[in-house]
Amino acid sequence: MILGIVEGTVVSDQNSFDIPGGRYLLINKCNQAGKLKNEFLVALDLVSAGKDEMVMIAESTSARETPTTKNKAVDAVIVGIIDKIDENDKVVYTK
Amino acid sequence: MILGIVEGTVVSDQNSFDIPGGRYLLINKCNQAGKLKNEFLVALDLVSAGKDEMVMIAESTSARETPTTKNKAVDAVIVGIIDKIDENDKVVYTK
Amino acid sequence: MILGIVEGTVVSDQNSFDIPGGRYLLINKCNQAGKLKNEFLVALDLVSAGKDEMVMIAESTSARETPTTKNKAVDAVIVGIIDKIDENDKVVYTK
Amino acid sequence: MILGIVEGTVVSDQNSFDIPGGRYLLINKCNQAGKLKNEFLVALDLVSAGKDEMVMIAESTSARETPTTKNKAVDAVIVGIIDKIDENDKVVYTK
Amino acid sequence: MILGIVEGTVVSDQNSFDIPGGRYLLINKCNQAGKLKNEFLVALDLVSAGKDEMVMIAESTSARETPTTKNKAVDAVIVGIIDKIDENDKVVYTK
Repeated sequence: MILGIVEGTVVSDQNSFDIPGGRYLLINKCNQAGKLKNEFLVALDLVSAGKDEMVMIAESTSARETPTTKNKAVDAVIVGIIDKIDENDKVVYTK
Repeated sequence: MILGIVEGTVVSDQNSFDIPGGRYLLINKCNQAGKLKNEFLVALDLVSAGKDEMVMIAESTSARETPTTKNKAVDAVIVGIIDKIDENDKVVYTK
Repeated sequence: MILGIVEGTVVSDQNSFDIPGGRYLLINKCNQAGKLKNEFLVALDLVSAGKDEMVMIAESTSARETPTTKNKAVDAVIVGIIDKIDENDKVVYTK
Repeated sequence: MILGIVEGTVVSDQNSFDIPGGRYLLINKCNQAGKLKNEFLVALDLVSAGKDEMVMIAESTSARETPTTKNKAVDAVIVGIIDKIDENDKVVYTK
Repeated sequence: MILGIVEGTVVSDQNSFDIPGGRYLLINKCNQAGKLKNEFLVALDLVSAGKDEMVMIAESTSARETPTTKNKAVDAVIVGIIDKIDENDKVVYTK
């Protein structure tokens, strides 16, 4: 999974997903300390992530292996909100 | 999902898809504000996207998880037309 | 899907595919106007593409979603021969 | 599969995986001799890998083809702990 | 499929594959003439490839579509040993 920060929302009324309540968020990829990479993608939100939260994103086909996304053409899903990351025994990120 | 602008059409009479009415569009990838990256791909259109519209594209296997593309060797599908994107509480794109 | 030009053939008698008549072609990726990128891959041919023809290639798992490739470890398949591409209302490639 | 060194842990209480005991590790990709690339990813641990061990990671959809990850949106899984690598008849890494 | 040269072996006793007799080989990617790229990956061997042989590798999910790898988290498999490649009517590689 890759890490990213929620920076905004994407509105698409005319789409092929048909997911009631589905939210598409604009994600800026980041490193394990939260440093932004300014590489963006659009991901479906499954965990009610909020703005500026660090999240884990599953890409590729894996993105549709949930009850919500089953048999949908989704290739990026937010699968977790990050609470804490430690690297070499030092905490490098906390929510 | 990635973002792109519809820039043209691709005609391929001799293909293995057998999708009646299937349209293949030439997409120029763009950022969330619509700035073109001049990186191109060919995607199957599922939402009747028009020229110069910004669209969301699902890549990889996810692209065949729709009634139309089921069991077809499609790896890029236009899944939504973008109406609006906001980033850090500012609208950076509107249709 | 990506675009490429057929530049040669790859012979592999000892393989795990067991696809009667399967042909493996050497593909040079190209842009929408046919300009070569000199990035190469090997793809299974499903449409009897000929040398120097521009083709569409589906990569990733999508490549095995055809009667021929079902349940085979194929990750790149030629799915169409390109007849014409237009970009911003100009024809940039014809067969 | 790619190679990496376990450098830390990632805590995400609010996630969509629902894998009891699932551990998410911070991986620094490395070459076959253990040289770090400083390219990081988050992977689910299936083999009880410890800090500083070199591991093999399966990415993409393949990551959910285990009893634990079946039908979960996981796209990176640690599938093996590396004991030894030889390259051109020289041992370049041992645990 | 991509091309590579077999350069060594990878030993991992503690793994989640449970493939009797499964061999993991260290592959150095190469071009169609056998020129090494010094980009390495670990692949499961299905065709009894030997050291210094040029092989075709299927990546991504496609890698588990064989009787041996079915439902295993394998994302790179050696699917064929290359005998000959011709490019623009010249033989650029022979075994």
